[in-house]
Amino acid sequence: MTPIPDSLHQTLSRLLGDEGWRTDEAARLAHAGDDSRRSAPPAAVALPRTREDVVALVRACREHRVPIVARGAGTGTTGAAVPVHGGVVVSFARMDRIIELRAADRCAVVEPGVRNGDLQQALMPHGLFWPPDPSSAETCTVGGNLATNAGGPRAVKYGATRDNVLGLVAVTGAGELIRCGGPYTKDSTGYDLTHLLVGSEGTLALIVEATLKLAPRPIAQAGLRAFYRDAACAAAAVSRLMAQPSVPAMLEFMDRRSLALLRHNGSDVPEAGAMLLIEADGDHDTLPRALSALGAAAEGEGLLSLDVAADGVARDRLWAARRALSPALRTIAPGKINEDVVVPVSRIPDLVAGVEALSAEYALPIVAFGHAGNGNLHVNILYHPDDAAETARAQAALPRVFALALALGGTLSGEHGIGLAKRGFMAQAFDAATLEAMRAIKRALDPDGILNPGKVLP
Amino acid sequence: MTPIPDSLHQTLSRLLGDEGWRTDEAARLAHAGDDSRRSAPPAAVALPRTREDVVALVRACREHRVPIVARGAGTGTTGAAVPVHGGVVVSFARMDRIIELRAADRCAVVEPGVRNGDLQQALMPHGLFWPPDPSSAETCTVGGNLATNAGGPRAVKYGATRDNVLGLVAVTGAGELIRCGGPYTKDSTGYDLTHLLVGSEGTLALIVEATLKLAPRPIAQAGLRAFYRDAACAAAAVSRLMAQPSVPAMLEFMDRRSLALLRHNGSDVPEAGAMLLIEADGDHDTLPRALSALGAAAEGEGLLSLDVAADGVARDRLWAARRALSPALRTIAPGKINEDVVVPVSRIPDLVAGVEALSAEYALPIVAFGHAGNGNLHVNILYHPDDAAETARAQAALPRVFALALALGGTLSGEHGIGLAKRGFMAQAFDAATLEAMRAIKRALDPDGILNPGKVLP
Repeated sequence: MTPIPDSLHQTLSRLLGDEGWRTDEAARLAHAGDDSRRSAPPAAVALPRTREDVVALVRACREHRVPIVARGAGTGTTGAAVPVHGGVVVSFARMDRIIELRAADRCAVVEPGVRNGDLQQALMPHGLFWPPDPSSAETCTVGGNLATNAGGPRAVKYGATRDNVLGLVAVTGAGELIRCGGPYTKDSTGYDLTHLLVGSEGTLALIVEATLKLAPRPIAQAGLRAFYRDAACAAAAVSRLMAQPSVPAMLEFMDRRSLALLRHNGSDVPEAGAMLLIEADGDHDTLPRALSALGAAAEGEGLLSLDVAADGVARDRLWAARRALSPALRTIAPGKINEDVVVPVSRIPDLVAGVEALSAEYALPIVAFGHAGNGNLHVNILYHPDDAAETARAQAALPRVFALALALGGTLSGEHGIGLAKRGFMAQAFDAATLEAMRAIKRALDPDGILNPGKVLP
Repeated sequence: MTPIPDSLHQTLSRLLGDEGWRTDEAARLAHAGDDSRRSAPPAAVALPRTREDVVALVRACREHRVPIVARGAGTGTTGAAVPVHGGVVVSFARMDRIIELRAADRCAVVEPGVRNGDLQQALMPHGLFWPPDPSSAETCTVGGNLATNAGGPRAVKYGATRDNVLGLVAVTGAGELIRCGGPYTKDSTGYDLTHLLVGSEGTLALIVEATLKLAPRPIAQAGLRAFYRDAACAAAAVSRLMAQPSVPAMLEFMDRRSLALLRHNGSDVPEAGAMLLIEADGDHDTLPRALSALGAAAEGEGLLSLDVAADGVARDRLWAARRALSPALRTIAPGKINEDVVVPVSRIPDLVAGVEALSAEYALPIVAFGHAGNGNLHVNILYHPDDAAETARAQAALPRVFALALALGGTLSGEHGIGLAKRGFMAQAFDAATLEAMRAIKRALDPDGILNPGKVLP
């Protein structure tokens, strides 16, 4: 790892001060890893306070060709925030203001370091929320959500991060401050840089401000739990649910093996080939109608049982099974490769069947569950990291999971992003010409390749 | 205008045949203009049948540095399809197939030449529709909708074109076929080229296939008509309507002058400062609830009257006023500059007040109406083209309308695009660094600048 050149060190420590420019080991180690369990300490950590700090920082680093890796809360699962080429980690922890809450315009202007959960709290009195709801919502930052195009269960109705951003202010790899979009919901004015930057994992620009699209917070929720004979019947129900006008607020799937595991761990779950958890939201007037429309769509070939949870307590019980799954997975095996492939909704049965076949072939438990309405399933390969043979089999099974999703017309990631974890598979997901177009855009916005080198593009 | 070099002519006439490569005057004149009333005949018209044709065409033109201008049905309003630098107009009239209708995946795979209206017809038996509904829907093509990021009244609930595209296959200015996105609704895999190409008006790539996101067709609609004391009260109602969970399916605004004009032309419209037309959609169960939620939100300070149109006939009567407006405008003055600026919803009153002030200053009728839920108002400057002084005043007022929208935190275009008409104002809408980032992206995908030169970017 190249150390920070002296003159750059002096420039940045003068610019950012002792609190904003850290080269001590504690700071470097605290900004080394993410939830992928990858880790590599940077040479320094910068904690800018203003967009002007970020501009100056990028220009100075560019002069010395020193890599810059943007970081939110480090809850990413792909290693995107891990500075494998050293250089400077830019933490947005001190740029965490909600700049403006424009309830009448249904948008909020925020700095990237604000936590998703804190934003939701601030929006609550206005009867609004920001839709992205990754499982890390309490701790993850809006900047991290933007970088990865984070999703969550609500995306089926409200969209993922990219669908809920109206404008950005960002600093390109050339050190230029750019502004795109704004506090309006319709825009045919020039190139759409906003959506391009979302999901680019800090490789094109550093986002310093975002105008977020808000949604009216539903007053009430109610849920349905449907068990099916097999994944094919459940997937057909998903298509029916998505083809009628009452859009579910969540639509989660669990495969046979996930259900067996929950049953084994004492959850109140019958024997079945697949489960759907279906949620409606709205107000007290509209909710019963929405629930009955969703219930009607859930009915069909292979439905074994359908429970309605019309109130909060029953609904909590219903979602308890979903929450119990992740801890239950750890009881089978401490190692878990958690992927988030996407397939067309109609191909969910093929994905589940393919995953079952891989499970048999590699003699490892593999479960599939997740955001069925978006065809975005979490495929979890379970193994014992202490067992070298199991670990090798798990690692060998992973490329097969991606190949399966791609063969079904799907793609590598629905909400986690690419980072380091899936970079090696990008050449299977995209042909050479498309990857080259992405590289050309990378060069256009980051001509010296200083922004998060070694991520996303192979 | 540079003629087509002989060798290129031979290559393309061999490639495309007599029906697909036209240099006769009739064909050239038929592909010269658009609905902006600008016109410039190309040197030749190409009508490819396949994506391979398009790849070969772009590569051949690139070799000779001959401009290429993509064209749908020529219903655009900004001159984007007008070949002001000559070269080849590529019409997608022979690439008009619906390749695949995937009802279970709620998407359709189409060629760019398919007409919006024909697609809607094909989707009807499946209970689905594609949301973009520009007023030219019967004749305009999906390719044109994609190029301009077309909208329409339904965008307030369902989004504009960009929000309803899942994937594209396109040929860049380098003559490379790229593929991005696909038949799935969640994607964090590499850079979002899909949304970047939408709205780029054929300046970055030629779209040869699109995977469109479909929505379940509502079974029933009902409407409300609300009159307010002034635009400020109507805009406050718009904010209230957008802040509650029953999203209106349309939310249209008319200013005082539009209403006066309708009244003058015999429409059943009372004297009022502003009108909102509010539509709900859903099924027969949910619709009455949605209507009452919207009615409650419409009520408030300055409401003069509220009519409910619960059935089809009443609803048609209610929308008749909106339909009568465009013809009525022509009765005042035959000349009309129709712009589609966007402002934050909360700034609608300021836009309307500013437009009234400009109307007085330039001694011209200027009306404002349109898609209030998106803050996307059509500002129409009316004048007599035979009157040189009026024409000059109309042309002088236009930059002031744009300056007003920008000063209110809005932007130049919500659904028409930039083309030639607004290109001169881009440097007011974006700072130099942002424009330079757009230019860098243009160079990345169209290194020789052959795709639609002279459009969008100044």
